[in-house]
Amino acid sequence: MAQSVRILGIDPGLRRTGWGLITCQGSRVAFLASGAITPPAKLALADRLCALAEALDALVADHAPDEAAVEETFVNADPRSALKLGQARGVCLLAPARHSVPVAEYAANRIKKSVVGAGHADKTQVAAMVARLLPGSRAETADAADALAIALCHAFHRKTAALRAVS
Amino acid sequence: MAQSVRILGIDPGLRRTGWGLITCQGSRVAFLASGAITPPAKLALADRLCALAEALDALVADHAPDEAAVEETFVNADPRSALKLGQARGVCLLAPARHSVPVAEYAANRIKKSVVGAGHADKTQVAAMVARLLPGSRAETADAADALAIALCHAFHRKTAALRAVS
Repeated sequence: MAQSVRILGIDPGLRRTGWGLITCQGSRVAFLASGAITPPAKLALADRLCALAEALDALVADHAPDEAAVEETFVNADPRSALKLGQARGVCLLAPARHSVPVAEYAANRIKKSVVGAGHADKTQVAAMVARLLPGSRAETADAADALAIALCHAFHRKTAALRAVS
Repeated sequence: MAQSVRILGIDPGLRRTGWGLITCQGSRVAFLASGAITPPAKLALADRLCALAEALDALVADHAPDEAAVEETFVNADPRSALKLGQARGVCLLAPARHSVPVAEYAANRIKKSVVGAGHADKTQVAAMVARLLPGSRAETADAADALAIALCHAFHRKTAALRAVS
């Protein structure tokens, strides 16, 4: 029997970071938990990042994932937005790595293609397929559904993905 | 007699993050230490960010700064570079905030203007003025000199800067 692996998917954002936890055993996947982290917008940047880091640390400590996966952020045309998103993304990559949880990265269109079958699927399609693939999942927000999609993508590709092990 | 305050300046970068520590007592400033953190480039991104975070944590633990200052990163035309830099910058803002050290941010041209008197000074001028303002400083790299300049800028402006206190 294949080993059961707990996978934490993270969809980074400064205003809202989605997360989703699944188990994967061979080709079987199952929903465990999901949610979103929303640091208070009135805080200064450093403190928002700190709130995000503390919430992620608690998640990793509570749920003890074996592996993590983070979306390779879509880089839009605005360098200022890219910088802001990068700051949140840095914290999202850091949290599992600090706990020696290997972190994989997947491009957005690869995630959509893995879950929906099309690289340009919209959020509604992603959420619908996440709900179908993970019966019982209660992804209240689009970010949580996206994070579950990232975890599913990793479940489907982890055997071939070059997992970046933390030394 | 004015209270003595230890200020940690940080110049964020994924390949190389400069840091500089000074004391400030009223209008007097003095050099304490400086250096650069260079996570191994062969590591995966999450592990490089982890190495950066651990080095910064050790710095904050060893030197117990009262306040920190980080350069507001220059956003160039390339969103991809901005994202990369943002990831390192997020970790640099996080490290002091996690230790309840208030973090201030200053734009690059404000730092140069504070230290050299001109917002468009080049790195050589900045390093020369840092050496003059902080006798005995041994900023081996340009990044360390930049970090000391950030700390100096904060020393000159901290009374008026809206320090972002960590709750």
